[in-house]
Amino acid sequence: MQALEWTGRSLRYLDQRQLPHSECVLETDDPRQVVEAIQSLAIRGAPLIGLAASYAAVLAVLKLEPRGSRAQCAALLESFLEVLAAARPTAVNLRFAVERMRERARSGEWSTVPELAAELEREALALHEEDRRACDAIGRSGAALLTEGSAVLTHCNTGALATGGDGTALNVIRHGWQQGLVRHVFVGETRPLFQGSRLTAWELGKLSIPYTIVADSAAAFLMAQDRVDVVIVGADRIAANGDVANKIGTYSLAVSAGRSGIPFYVAAPVSTIDRRARSGADIPIEERSAQEITRIGSTSVAPPDAAAYSPAFDVTPAELIWAIITDRGVLTPPLAKAIAAVGD
Amino acid sequence: MQALEWTGRSLRYLDQRQLPHSECVLETDDPRQVVEAIQSLAIRGAPLIGLAASYAAVLAVLKLEPRGSRAQCAALLESFLEVLAAARPTAVNLRFAVERMRERARSGEWSTVPELAAELEREALALHEEDRRACDAIGRSGAALLTEGSAVLTHCNTGALATGGDGTALNVIRHGWQQGLVRHVFVGETRPLFQGSRLTAWELGKLSIPYTIVADSAAAFLMAQDRVDVVIVGADRIAANGDVANKIGTYSLAVSAGRSGIPFYVAAPVSTIDRRARSGADIPIEERSAQEITRIGSTSVAPPDAAAYSPAFDVTPAELIWAIITDRGVLTPPLAKAIAAVGD
Repeated sequence: MQALEWTGRSLRYLDQRQLPHSECVLETDDPRQVVEAIQSLAIRGAPLIGLAASYAAVLAVLKLEPRGSRAQCAALLESFLEVLAAARPTAVNLRFAVERMRERARSGEWSTVPELAAELEREALALHEEDRRACDAIGRSGAALLTEGSAVLTHCNTGALATGGDGTALNVIRHGWQQGLVRHVFVGETRPLFQGSRLTAWELGKLSIPYTIVADSAAAFLMAQDRVDVVIVGADRIAANGDVANKIGTYSLAVSAGRSGIPFYVAAPVSTIDRRARSGADIPIEERSAQEITRIGSTSVAPPDAAAYSPAFDVTPAELIWAIITDRGVLTPPLAKAIAAVGD
Repeated sequence: MQALEWTGRSLRYLDQRQLPHSECVLETDDPRQVVEAIQSLAIRGAPLIGLAASYAAVLAVLKLEPRGSRAQCAALLESFLEVLAAARPTAVNLRFAVERMRERARSGEWSTVPELAAELEREALALHEEDRRACDAIGRSGAALLTEGSAVLTHCNTGALATGGDGTALNVIRHGWQQGLVRHVFVGETRPLFQGSRLTAWELGKLSIPYTIVADSAAAFLMAQDRVDVVIVGADRIAANGDVANKIGTYSLAVSAGRSGIPFYVAAPVSTIDRRARSGADIPIEERSAQEITRIGSTSVAPPDAAAYSPAFDVTPAELIWAIITDRGVLTPPLAKAIAAVGD
């Protein structure tokens, strides 16, 4: 299963809104369709949306008038990169990928549209390959933290569906399972969009790793019952002080894990660190539509005029995090110091 | 709106599974239909299921062969009371109501079936009236704890739909609103069955109290953002040491409130106290079907073969509770001592 596949002229992607019921692969050469896919969560997961955006930049250039000047092309590309960067506000990987594409366009030696497209394609493929390698490194480093027979609790989806490789937190679980360290996985369903029960459960099923879905609100009770040995989650943006923005519900898990003395790990590539954000307070938190709370499929679960607040992410303060598992090794507290020391 | 209404020969009840979409009132003189309504959550809320059970006992007697002896009647009633008491395991109010009916049958002066029915009907009506008065007392005592302009977070449904009166925690909110103390209510949707977004939102709408629904997992983030001044929830059973069993997700809210220094109150009648349970460990926790997690209406949110764990309740340790608001006043820590001191 591949969440994204670049054909050389188009992007093929799994429509994740339809999982686990149908494995529907869409293909497009329209860069605006990629933006829409990111906004509608057909393509989601912090690292994956960065990669999708980089391929979308290539598609945008392939649509340019072939006779345009370098300045004209650069300006048109720039305006599309701004649209891309604004597609979703919280995950820094999107901004990171856009920045890399922008830099390649600026520094690359090209004079024609096909030459620019080729430059950007090389950059997108490089980003994809870097993400694959980052996933491998995270999986290996993280598994080394696990003890035999562990029951792991995770949240949202951080696997092959969320990245260009085998995942972040879910890849730690996968490596741990392969090494006989993971005994069972508890999957928080992840309201409102059920990325846990729809996507993580589906990935774990494919990997034949035993799992049990729980309502997000039941995770704390599982921990209080000593049924969870370790919590591992991903990240959408990590501030310089070690505060972590991740899927809504993560903070609540960290607080409960802290009360029960259960290790709480974050797994993410170093590219998720945003050194310009001094703390979690500097991270913009995306708010999504109330309808994502009040309707599920064709079923309404609230009065027709009900107001709902739907932050897509929350911020977990650094002090609740035992370690951040990155592609450059495991960062341990004090996280601000470890983050300052790790290279970009 | 009345959740339960006794006609003298039958029980009329709102089918709460259909709220907020339709206000469907069902009427039955079949005691077994009442048991099914309790099990399917057509009738729910700890105090309300106690009242429904007491009326069901009357209906059971009305079905008895009129010529039976006192011993025969008592034995048949007893076997039905056992069915009733087992309908749902966690809420102690059910057991409390059944015990009251049993005691009335034992001690009452009756020799014929109609006389027994009349005895039990008086007991059921008395229980209903006691619950109404308990709700009033709880609402008044609880509101006295609120400060002006409070944003209140609540969970599940604890209003007129859950009791024979105006509610427990939600009645505290209602009194607070009437006194200008409550500014806004945040309603946890309450997975898996959405009693918050379906029922509490509906009640608040009818009362014209402004509210916002949040995913259960977002409540902790709201608290971290200083957007909640007080948390008030109900209870299904309170142990002698002050541990509280309540709707799944309550414990997680108490832990997060504790971290943020936000007052966490439980509102329940004294009849919710189970002195035989020394601590929360002695309270049986009902587990419900995995399907309640993996399906919503016609929409499946998990792979077809997914395993799910669905505890209906969790236990909040006494140390996280700032006070228990009862119909006999506000119990404050040390809760074990306050509970020992309060009369039954």
